[in-house]
Amino acid sequence: MSDSITITRIDITPVAFKDPALLNAVGVHEPYALRAVVEVSTDQGLTGLGETYADEGHLRRLRAAADAITGTDVHALGRMRQAVALALGEERGSDGHGLTGMITTSGTLDRVFSPFEVACLDIQARAAGRPVCDLLGGAVRDRVPFSAYLFYKWAGHPGGTPDDWGPALDPEGIVAQARRMVDTYGFTAVKLKGGVMPPRQEVDAVLALREAFPGVPLRLDPNAAWTVETSLTVARELEGVLEYLEDPTPGQEGMARVAREAAMPLATNMCVVGFDELPAAVRRDAVQVVLSDHHYWGGLQRSRLLAGICDTFGMGLSMHSNSHLGISLAAMTHLGAATENLTYACDTHWPWKDPAEDVVAPGALGFRDGSVAVPAGPGLGVELDRDALARLHEQYLACGLRNRDDTGYMRSIDPAYEKLTPRW
Amino acid sequence: MSDSITITRIDITPVAFKDPALLNAVGVHEPYALRAVVEVSTDQGLTGLGETYADEGHLRRLRAAADAITGTDVHALGRMRQAVALALGEERGSDGHGLTGMITTSGTLDRVFSPFEVACLDIQARAAGRPVCDLLGGAVRDRVPFSAYLFYKWAGHPGGTPDDWGPALDPEGIVAQARRMVDTYGFTAVKLKGGVMPPRQEVDAVLALREAFPGVPLRLDPNAAWTVETSLTVARELEGVLEYLEDPTPGQEGMARVAREAAMPLATNMCVVGFDELPAAVRRDAVQVVLSDHHYWGGLQRSRLLAGICDTFGMGLSMHSNSHLGISLAAMTHLGAATENLTYACDTHWPWKDPAEDVVAPGALGFRDGSVAVPAGPGLGVELDRDALARLHEQYLACGLRNRDDTGYMRSIDPAYEKLTPRW
Ligand SMILES: [Mg+2]
Ligand SMILES: [Mg+2]
Repeated sequence: MSDSITITRIDITPVAFKDPALLNAVGVHEPYALRAVVEVSTDQGLTGLGETYADEGHLRRLRAAADAITGTDVHALGRMRQAVALALGEERGSDGHGLTGMITTSGTLDRVFSPFEVACLDIQARAAGRPVCDLLGGAVRDRVPFSAYLFYKWAGHPGGTPDDWGPALDPEGIVAQARRMVDTYGFTAVKLKGGVMPPRQEVDAVLALREAFPGVPLRLDPNAAWTVETSLTVARELEGVLEYLEDPTPGQEGMARVAREAAMPLATNMCVVGFDELPAAVRRDAVQVVLSDHHYWGGLQRSRLLAGICDTFGMGLSMHSNSHLGISLAAMTHLGAATENLTYACDTHWPWKDPAEDVVAPGALGFRDGSVAVPAGPGLGVELDRDALARLHEQYLACGLRNRDDTGYMRSIDPAYEKLTPRW
Repeated sequence: MSDSITITRIDITPVAFKDPALLNAVGVHEPYALRAVVEVSTDQGLTGLGETYADEGHLRRLRAAADAITGTDVHALGRMRQAVALALGEERGSDGHGLTGMITTSGTLDRVFSPFEVACLDIQARAAGRPVCDLLGGAVRDRVPFSAYLFYKWAGHPGGTPDDWGPALDPEGIVAQARRMVDTYGFTAVKLKGGVMPPRQEVDAVLALREAFPGVPLRLDPNAAWTVETSLTVARELEGVLEYLEDPTPGQEGMARVAREAAMPLATNMCVVGFDELPAAVRRDAVQVVLSDHHYWGGLQRSRLLAGICDTFGMGLSMHSNSHLGISLAAMTHLGAATENLTYACDTHWPWKDPAEDVVAPGALGFRDGSVAVPAGPGLGVELDRDALARLHEQYLACGLRNRDDTGYMRSIDPAYEKLTPRW
């Protein structure tokens, strides 16, 4: 038997990277997005990478988890998870502030454990000289399709230089944004982040997209900004147009009421974000598509469990994204490649990131025809660029942001802004 | 990246090993139990082992599957499963004759794919120099507990030499059998295969076990031999005595009716034997414990999926057994070690096997205190004994049995015997 591969040290580095003024149902993206880079070192010289949220509470929990698993073999994921659960103790399940800005329910253990699991799989796969997807049952597709993720946006952050995307505040702006994304990346599916404009205007934007991109699957995600009645109105207006309608209204009960009458499937990354929420969702038939996300579903192996549950209980499976860097894109791609029933193009914020800003060395990840090939190297197939990591960490220190707060930022610009769920 | 590990050849060898005259709800075990040994060879010189049923239809399907995956990399399990599904084509889902003697529903693909998956994981783990459980999330326990599996039995097969267990046809015989099992193997849980005697006698046997083994968890499994009413009578009589009551009555509807009134959890390996049966079982709350079995749940990775589903939907998890050899015991032990919520002692027919008869080299597997330690070597940790394999294959050829048929064998002894479900 080979020697064990023991974790000797874990570095957790918060980083910040520039983010455009993207609008959503609870405010606007701040000038920087925060992420934490997890680097697991071992006594065999092998290292592995993970990427996760970087809010202060999460960083504190990550550190506690890191201390709890240092000294463990990288294969002992089950025992590691038990150790992390123990270390989190009282903090488990009391996480109400929303690590991801949108998600307020439990599942703290899954969110904290995830980057360590990814890093340990990276190491296991490197030790075996195989890609991470081979630890997940092997690739069933060579390339993973992603969707164009459109946002209503301002020309720039107030007081800042306008970005080169320009504003998008009406159907024409949205269609122009989609055109650039499709031309640049080759996306074959398009998602609009809604909940920003009155529903009628967002319906018009989707209809304009339909006209501009005939045959391309379209999605609309207002992040629960609508009442059940508004949701049903929109569902009627977009019947035959959307491949799915994502989180039109808050809560499983509301979603179930919409689902009973809407013609298209309802998708969610809000009312089912942890395993404990699945039984009620199934009982209610509240959602027909679950957006997986290894960052809060407990890592790649538990995301496979979610996939298997969706397959077993007749739910579709898509993939959610937050603003992220290359480590996450690599992990999402390995997972997407190995998951047979991931039949929808995955979400990604990738195009919104300045190409010059990442923590991984360039070249391993690239879009073609809207999809990303599984990186060719062993493990995740991406390598840490230490200079870049240092730069983005400096940027984190300098930017002053410590917790994602889209609403607070919006209020600093428009003091009258109120967070309303539902709003319309 | 390491070279791929390509399957170059697959040998499927049916074997027969002696089996005592164990009684169950549909008849009696024949003088030989049949199994198929699957040996996967690769271009890297590594080989892997799997074990499964050996009924003729199953052997035919195994051969078709083997041909379909030869030439594939051992890591490409997802693609392999797709290839096997394609190869089975029309045969899928039409498997009505019961490969395991008890199971008549669908899931043919899962049953056919399982031994190949196990063999490929064996090879993957050998290549990595790690135990198979490390590919399943790592061990969360060092030893896997098994239960004493008691059977009503005759002294021997009609016309044959009596075995050294003696007959067990009343409570005293059952308690004596349990005593020997517990003394020999150290089992800390006891299961009685029922459905053989009138329910009152089986209740008395369980009560005798309770008196003889105070504090030891007890189970009773009549294999759906009872009506709902009889099941409820037994449940009342054994309230506070059984840790679970296994398959008292046929079908999910009947089980749900019993579950609503019975004080103890109901377990099953009959009314939920495939992923397609889980949604209805959850909706009906038909069972509270599912007995997993990697031989028909599609292998070790899909057995982990079943475990995750049980965990998510609040069902307990135990493990089912058929008559089996050392390859299966090794696989069951790796799975049991890696499955956190496998909180019940697993079933095994191991004590009923002549210790001189196995296809694996002795020494890797041993019971202590009713549990088996994860084998120490890489992969499954067991090695094929080619002489023993040849001997048991000769025995298969000579014995004339080709399909398990407990009812037919019983009828050859007692022409008046009728298979009745339920019987009482
Ligand atoms: Mg969403
Ligand atoms: Mg049973």
